[in-house]
This record gives sequence, structure tokens and C-alpha cells, in this order.
Amino acid sequence: MASMHVVCLPRLSRVAVCGGTHGNEMSGIYLVKELLKARKKVMEDEEEKPVSVMLVLSNPRAVQQCRRYIDTDLNRCFTHATLSGPMSDTTPYEIIRSRELNTMLGPKGSPGAVDLVCDLHNTTANMGLCLISYSDCDWICLHIFRHLQRQMPDVPLRYIHFDVSNKESYSLDSVGKHGFAMEIGPQPHGVVRSNVYTAMKAGVQHMLDWVSFFNSGNVSEGGFVDVFTMVKRFDYPRDSETHDITAAVHPQLQDRDFCLLHPEDPLFQTFSGETLRYKGKEPLYPFFINECAYYEKGIALSLARKRRVMIPAIRVQTEQEEQSNEQRFTSEEEE
Amino acid sequence: MASMHVVCLPRLSRVAVCGGTHGNEMSGIYLVKELLKARKKVMEDEEEKPVSVMLVLSNPRAVQQCRRYIDTDLNRCFTHATLSGPMSDTTPYEIIRSRELNTMLGPKGSPGAVDLVCDLHNTTANMGLCLISYSDCDWICLHIFRHLQRQMPDVPLRYIHFDVSNKESYSLDSVGKHGFAMEIGPQPHGVVRSNVYTAMKAGVQHMLDWVSFFNSGNVSEGGFVDVFTMVKRFDYPRDSETHDITAAVHPQLQDRDFCLLHPEDPLFQTFSGETLRYKGKEPLYPFFINECAYYEKGIALSLARKRRVMIPAIRVQTEQEEQSNEQRFTSEEEE
Repeated sequence: MASMHVVCLPRLSRVAVCGGTHGNEMSGIYLVKELLKARKKVMEDEEEKPVSVMLVLSNPRAVQQCRRYIDTDLNRCFTHATLSGPMSDTTPYEIIRSRELNTMLGPKGSPGAVDLVCDLHNTTANMGLCLISYSDCDWICLHIFRHLQRQMPDVPLRYIHFDVSNKESYSLDSVGKHGFAMEIGPQPHGVVRSNVYTAMKAGVQHMLDWVSFFNSGNVSEGGFVDVFTMVKRFDYPRDSETHDITAAVHPQLQDRDFCLLHPEDPLFQTFSGETLRYKGKEPLYPFFINECAYYEKGIALSLARKRRVMIPAIRVQTEQEEQSNEQRFTSEEEE
Repeated sequence: MASMHVVCLPRLSRVAVCGGTHGNEMSGIYLVKELLKARKKVMEDEEEKPVSVMLVLSNPRAVQQCRRYIDTDLNRCFTHATLSGPMSDTTPYEIIRSRELNTMLGPKGSPGAVDLVCDLHNTTANMGLCLISYSDCDWICLHIFRHLQRQMPDVPLRYIHFDVSNKESYSLDSVGKHGFAMEIGPQPHGVVRSNVYTAMKAGVQHMLDWVSFFNSGNVSEGGFVDVFTMVKRFDYPRDSETHDITAAVHPQLQDRDFCLLHPEDPLFQTFSGETLRYKGKEPLYPFFINECAYYEKGIALSLARKRRVMIPAIRVQTEQEEQSNEQRFTSEEEE
């Protein structure tokens, strides 16, 4: 059993921390800029680093205009199909930029890709700090999550799993061998709130500390993690002619991300005052409740099933193991 | 003394309720759309109205794109200078639109202007419901404010005074004979929160109720109102080269709009963690703390002095008074 032995995984030599993938999510933008400044100072001191950390401002044009994107949502451009599709004079800016980032951090799915991508995001939803990943059995991401939970007891932390195949995965973090979005809210887009910035800064620092700890050969103990797997999404009620929304998230649901939603609980309040209720049969956990950027995507909230996942103890492979056992551990990871 | 007699003021025959002056402040947009729908129904019932209410979507192009504005901030375009300046093929959309609105609701400063403009806004700041006006002695605006305070005891209500001359007044509400912005927050731009929408809907309804009450000849009793007069503004600390902000509003100040700020209280927290303090000599009331749209205007927060204003009892003029006394009451209002 996984808990009985220590799983050995390849070293995390190259980590990328990305901000400004959405140009109006301010914590990650200011954090990456601040880390770049701090690095400049450190480099002047010529200190050595246990991990190579790349700091990336993903969508500089959108950042400059303080908009989510210029032509299309960059964080939907990292599918294999989009990365390898045809290009022309009219190719949207973000598709061009996604290829630059794929060259810089990937290529996606190749041995040359960075070991870990941490992509920094904000939400207007009351979600606390979430790691969002495509895998519920990526022990690196799950161990980082557990480390953050222990180190940041005052911040509500959750692990969200989007069950999307590697082929279909679309976000910047999918370019790394491991990767996740670090999503923090509530914060209005275009605004930086000091408490949210500080939580993100601490989250990134604890993540890098854990990577150093792991790379140094220490064993990270196994244990249990709650994983929220997205299973359903709801759009706002809309006018059939104008497509305008006709209701807002119900005040009893607003800000109650990760509080169990039961059948017949209030879901929306129409602009004329009527309450619309959750008609599902299964109690589920709502999240991304009333996220600003999802109005145009037709998502008022997402719903998740919660599951307890056992994660094994892990340690970094020795150089010898890395050479001889790569094949075996790869297949074990995919179990 | 004002409290000893009843001031008689002209009837408020025509009222304009405007939403979408900023195209991403959603409560007013959805409220005006909802009121237009309700009106359609009422008109089918052929009911009569005690007040003529115009419902206006001020910046339809910005609303469609869910942006504050297309070319320039519409709510800064209503100075006499801008309204009467030259026009060309390259005139910004909002300047063209401001003239359309001035024709529809004004002309500003003329006898033909609507009697009252209520312009609906949202802020990301924790300001509750504020009426913002250029006058601290407009008895109509101040009586409406007092009425709302009494009718909405659960909503924090404040009256903000921008001490700007009639000539320099720049916002849409300055087009009416009386006018104010109804500003409600906190709400992220681009998002509608049900509680904020409901407060705005109630505010508008109570305002219209008071106008009907006033027009029907009832006396509104005098009394005292706290007026917050804006006296000072602070920008964020910025990098002298890049002009990027280098600090966020301090967590101890964030969301504490209208809580007295004392000398040496924390003002900002830099992105490297340092606290910057308020160096003013006078305790003042902060508001518009960390408003999203004011980053580009260089305003991190505004500061106000609070003053208690005595407002007289008022009633509507009879038709006879209106004809014979117009001159006298106009000069009394201006005292």
C-alpha cells in the first residue's frame, strides 16, 4: 500500500512562478514584479540557489491594459490542438503568446518542460486559497497543498480537481511536468488587497521551501487530503431574447463557497425578487460562486464532490534511481 | 431661523433615474433594465403616475462591453466647457454621448432641465449606500437622504459633499436642477451582488416615494444631517520610473471607510512588507478606500471632514407661490 512505503520521484530542478496570465488579477502581477526586484538584489549578492525559479509575467499586454485578455483568454490556449494549430496574420495575440510561453516553459508533454508550474490567479469569489489541478494523484501537487495547509493555518485552503485529460488540458500550468493554479479570493479584478497579496506571497514562499526540502532528500510523510472534484456548472438564468442575466446569486449562497449546497437550497434571486432553488438530487460543494470573469463563459457557480484521498510518503530519487527507475515510477504515478 | 419656518420649494415634476453611466457597475444597469420591464407592464395597465420618471441607460456602448467607458470617463464630461466645446470626427464617444444626455435631461443650468437626477453607481470600496452631491445646502437632496436613512435602518447611509462650483461640476447628476449619485459598495465591477442590487432598488423606490410625498403637499420636518465634505486625496506610493504602485492599502485601513483616521495610523503596506503611516495633523474620515476605477486617476483614498448640517422643514410650493415667489426662493436656496 502507498502508505507503507516511500514513493521516490524525480527532482524538481526547475520551477516557474507565473503571474498576470489574466491581466487584471493583481496579486500575482505585483508578486512576480516584487520577486523580480528581490532577485535583482539577491543576484547582486551572488547567492546560490537550491532550485532554479523562473519568474514569468505571462500576458504583459493585458497587464499593461489591466484587462483579463486582449483578444482571447490566454489560460484556455494551452491545449495541444491550439499550441500546434495554424498561424496567420490574424492569429489572436494570446495564441501567439501561448506558443512563446510553451517554448519558454515546455514544450508541453516533453522531457524539456519545467518540473513545476505555479500560476497565480485571483477570483472575486470567496474561495480563500485554492490549488487547482488536473490530477487527483499528482503527489507533488498534493504534498505542496498539505505543506501549505500546515504552514498557513489562518487561511482556508482547498484542493480543486478538474477531471480533464492531459490532451484536453488548457491552462498555462499544464505546460509543466507538474502544475497547478494558485487561486485566491475574494478580490475584485483590477484591485489589490493587502491581505490577499500577503497570503499569496506566503503561499509561494512555502511552496518553494517545500521544493527545497524535497530536493534535499527529506521524506514528506503520507496522509489524507480532501479533494474537491468539479462535477457540474450552472449558468445564470437568462432572458431568452437578449441573453441578459435575469437573476443574481442568492444572498444566502453568495460568499458561501465550499459550504454544502442541499437540494431545495436557494440558488438565485431574480431581479424582480423571486427565489430559485437548487433542483439537484445530490448535496454538492459550490465554488467559484459569482466569479466576475465567468459571466461571459456562462458560469454562475461550479459544484464539486468531496473525496478523501490518501497520499503516500514521498522523497526525491537519488541520481542512481533517477537513471535506472524512471520508467517504473512513471507508471506508478499513473496508477 | 430655518428650523422655525417651512421652506417652500418648486415641485419635482420630472425625475431621471440613470444607470450604466459606468458600463461595468452592474446594480444600476440591471435595476434600470428591470424598471423598464416593469414600466412596460404598468403602461399596459394604463396606470397614472404622480411623478414623471425617465429611465436612462447612460453609456450603452460601455454597458455592452462591460467596461467603465469606451474612450473616456463619461462621468467627467458634463462641465459646461466640455458640453460646449468643439466637435470633430475624432471626438471621443463619451463626449458625443454627454451631449445627447444633456439634450435629453438638460440643458444643464436651464429652466428646461429635469428637476432631479439620480445617477446609480457601484464601488469596490466598503461604503454602504452614499448620496454624493455638489451641495451641502440642497434641501431636496438632504431630505431624500434623511428619508432613506429612516426607511433603510439596516443599510449604512452617508451623505458626501464634493465642494465643486456649479461651473466645474462634471458628473451626469449635475445636469438636473437637483441631483446626486447613489453610490453603493462593496461590489466588484462586472459583478452583481444580490444584496447590493436589493439595497439600490429599495433606495430608488424610497426616493421616488419621497418625491411623491413632497409633490402631494406634505411637510417634511427639518432636522440634522451629517455631511462628509471631501478635503483631501492620497495616491498610492509609486515607483518613480515605472509609475507602478509599490504598496497596497494597509490591511488595518482596508474596508474601514468612514472610520476616523488619526495621525500615525497605518495607511499603506508596501509589497515588501513595510507600513506607511498617515502623516496629516487632523483626524479625517477616509472613503473610496481602494476603489478599482481610481487607480488610473491616482486616488488610493479620499478624506473628508464631518459636519452636522441643520436642514429646514420643506414643502412644495402651491401653484400661486410658484409663480410669484420663484425669485425669492431661488435666492434663499443659495444662501
